[in-house]
Amino acid sequence: MIIDVLDTAESFAGVTRRTVKKVPLLRGRTVVNLFFEASTRTRTTFELAAKRLSADVLNIQMAASATTKGETLLDTLANFEAMQCDMFIVRHDRSGTAHFIARHVAPHISVINAGDGSHAHPTQAMLDMFTIRRIKGDFYPLSVAIVGDIAHSRVARSQIHALTTLGVNEVRVIGPKTLMPKDINALGVHVYHNLEAGLRDVDVVIMLRLQRERMDSELLPGELEYYQQYGLTEEKLKAAKADAMIMHPGPINRGVEIESAVADGPRSVILQQVTHGIAIRMAVMSMTMGSGLDLGTET
Amino acid sequence: MIIDVLDTAESFAGVTRRTVKKVPLLRGRTVVNLFFEASTRTRTTFELAAKRLSADVLNIQMAASATTKGETLLDTLANFEAMQCDMFIVRHDRSGTAHFIARHVAPHISVINAGDGSHAHPTQAMLDMFTIRRIKGDFYPLSVAIVGDIAHSRVARSQIHALTTLGVNEVRVIGPKTLMPKDINALGVHVYHNLEAGLRDVDVVIMLRLQRERMDSELLPGELEYYQQYGLTEEKLKAAKADAMIMHPGPINRGVEIESAVADGPRSVILQQVTHGIAIRMAVMSMTMGSGLDLGTET
Amino acid sequence: MIIDVLDTAESFAGVTRRTVKKVPLLRGRTVVNLFFEASTRTRTTFELAAKRLSADVLNIQMAASATTKGETLLDTLANFEAMQCDMFIVRHDRSGTAHFIARHVAPHISVINAGDGSHAHPTQAMLDMFTIRRIKGDFYPLSVAIVGDIAHSRVARSQIHALTTLGVNEVRVIGPKTLMPKDINALGVHVYHNLEAGLRDVDVVIMLRLQRERMDSELLPGELEYYQQYGLTEEKLKAAKADAMIMHPGPINRGVEIESAVADGPRSVILQQVTHGIAIRMAVMSMTMGSGLDLGTET
Repeated sequence: MIIDVLDTAESFAGVTRRTVKKVPLLRGRTVVNLFFEASTRTRTTFELAAKRLSADVLNIQMAASATTKGETLLDTLANFEAMQCDMFIVRHDRSGTAHFIARHVAPHISVINAGDGSHAHPTQAMLDMFTIRRIKGDFYPLSVAIVGDIAHSRVARSQIHALTTLGVNEVRVIGPKTLMPKDINALGVHVYHNLEAGLRDVDVVIMLRLQRERMDSELLPGELEYYQQYGLTEEKLKAAKADAMIMHPGPINRGVEIESAVADGPRSVILQQVTHGIAIRMAVMSMTMGSGLDLGTET
Repeated sequence: MIIDVLDTAESFAGVTRRTVKKVPLLRGRTVVNLFFEASTRTRTTFELAAKRLSADVLNIQMAASATTKGETLLDTLANFEAMQCDMFIVRHDRSGTAHFIARHVAPHISVINAGDGSHAHPTQAMLDMFTIRRIKGDFYPLSVAIVGDIAHSRVARSQIHALTTLGVNEVRVIGPKTLMPKDINALGVHVYHNLEAGLRDVDVVIMLRLQRERMDSELLPGELEYYQQYGLTEEKLKAAKADAMIMHPGPINRGVEIESAVADGPRSVILQQVTHGIAIRMAVMSMTMGSGLDLGTET
Repeated sequence: MIIDVLDTAESFAGVTRRTVKKVPLLRGRTVVNLFFEASTRTRTTFELAAKRLSADVLNIQMAASATTKGETLLDTLANFEAMQCDMFIVRHDRSGTAHFIARHVAPHISVINAGDGSHAHPTQAMLDMFTIRRIKGDFYPLSVAIVGDIAHSRVARSQIHALTTLGVNEVRVIGPKTLMPKDINALGVHVYHNLEAGLRDVDVVIMLRLQRERMDSELLPGELEYYQQYGLTEEKLKAAKADAMIMHPGPINRGVEIESAVADGPRSVILQQVTHGIAIRMAVMSMTMGSGLDLGTET
């Protein structure tokens, strides 16, 4: 299934490079960006993807507090459904919201998870896989390290799921003990608490954003100490393979989790990830539309 | 006139059920959603209606305070007029604003009232009439009850006007004395203060939203007591005809003015109202555009 | 160069008068309205211009505080660039921001300055020149007076640049000493501190908006006194030529910098300026798109 998405995204990657970056696949369809958590960046990529598929887009910024009762959330959805909207792009700070919505809307409506709590962010993981495949060609021989706040990262959770599904050789997670999820051993990954040890001979380094707002202050030793231990620098990167690629879901915190020389360096693919994000979202949207397939909610 | 709108809306109801929910009637026209009062829901239905007519839409959220002087409001309008906008959809918390605007803009510009103070909400009333006609077929034999805060409801005022114009057999209003308008006897309706007495043998029950922000606190006995007296339950509904249809302009307050079993029950047409709202707004927009006809401001 | 823009705008002025106000010149292109300073009005004219060129538009309202470090601003831009956006319309309260951005984005991306600090607002100046040429025909014989807060006005700065480039006979600036820029003598204009003396026999009067939020309170004697000295009234206007045209970039403060009888009178072209603003922005957008020409940042 992930492979199907990656293959479809290849064709859209071509579209977004053209002067007229538009295909009529979703003309006359209505896509609702239903964001209960503010995110200019992710909303923008979905909005652009929908517009480049020629869909009409509604941006709905909702206060999560306005729909604290599940009942009221369902009324809101039922209303958009009654307006004959075809697809909901859902971001919510509560894990499981997109899945909950997908279970309750009419079968012909597509629901795409644009991030739910600390649970999952499937389109981010898919665009990461797309980026890895474009550069490395094959998943099997790869050792991949994910660095940072694994415990609170829906991105990490989705990446681990995708990488193991695609059969990479090894997934490593690197970070302080306080930022590791309790169930980490069940995820089939190797855990490191030392950055250089964890980076040894890896092919891919995925840095996570340090989301200070997600953490209790006592979990972290302070930005400077964090950077000294887990910040990715050219020096520390020497442990990885010479052609290791550097990824980050953005937005990056320069000097906190990554050094500018690395972020802007020749092995960084951080901006390519953004570009691929549009193609992946076009692929997911066009594949799920009207199919009853809720592609984004599973991973 | 209302009948013309309902007939036109029938053709658009077909469009919104298609996969490509778009007709090119207003291509190249500019519709301005000029909302001085926040309303995601109503704005969204007008925005969708305009986009499905292929118009370009501008969403302008204005603070009512920014245009307290009529002069300044007219300057704002004159500017949008100078930008060659073709239509204003106006919502304002002051009664008469849409009418005031319609009197002052250039004749080729259409003005649609999307709710003004406690005065009128004509497209809501039209979609309600559309829904009644679709289900009941004819207006003449019907007894219709409107329940709730009649005094502060622009929806009720527009519904009463439309129902009497269309010649229904009887319009009843039901609610506490404190929530009846002073001029209620001039409106040609029968007034009830007891819910079951008022519902006796009616064909249509229209519940109003309890807009707590509109009322002085001393007018109401408290939500629970209100619900006990005027909340629509299956039990109380037994007084109405067996095939009585249940309507509500939304958003509903479950357990305040209506019981969930009724709102979600087989006789409820609440979500159909939402669907019809798009068709009605497409009809009103396409009929008024460029005609100099300010359809929405009269009712 | 300015003449080329004015000539191109002539063709678009025709488009905006048609019923279908749309040309497919920028179909499939993505225009980003990147506003770090709130401005419903200017954003709207750019949004309309882009939509009438058939472009897709993203409205991004950014807090200037979120990107205080230049580095972070560049990361934001790099992301939109990676999303294959084609054009940035930039407004910022810091002088030089649009120019800074134009220097750092990829060469195929167009950057249009929609106002930067007290430095420049080039599309405003161009639409003013367009309006003058339409009414007066030729620039050479004209005496033009600009009245108000010259020191803090990016509009005045861009107008003076455009008027001297186009070779008008004389540019005068009129205002209190406290509102004159220190470098005023280098700009090739004549300075007046008395309104009637400055208006003597001019062909064009350009009033500036009194932007109270831009000034330290001690610079101004109070609104009433300002109006008595520098407010444009019918009486004071007698000093100008009988066919002098009256301009204002809007929004106007009635009774502060201009009398209603003048603003709404037969010689006022204030609303025509707004109309021409759309045509000018369509011209600038279509001429710069993909050309690597950053037309808006020079003036």
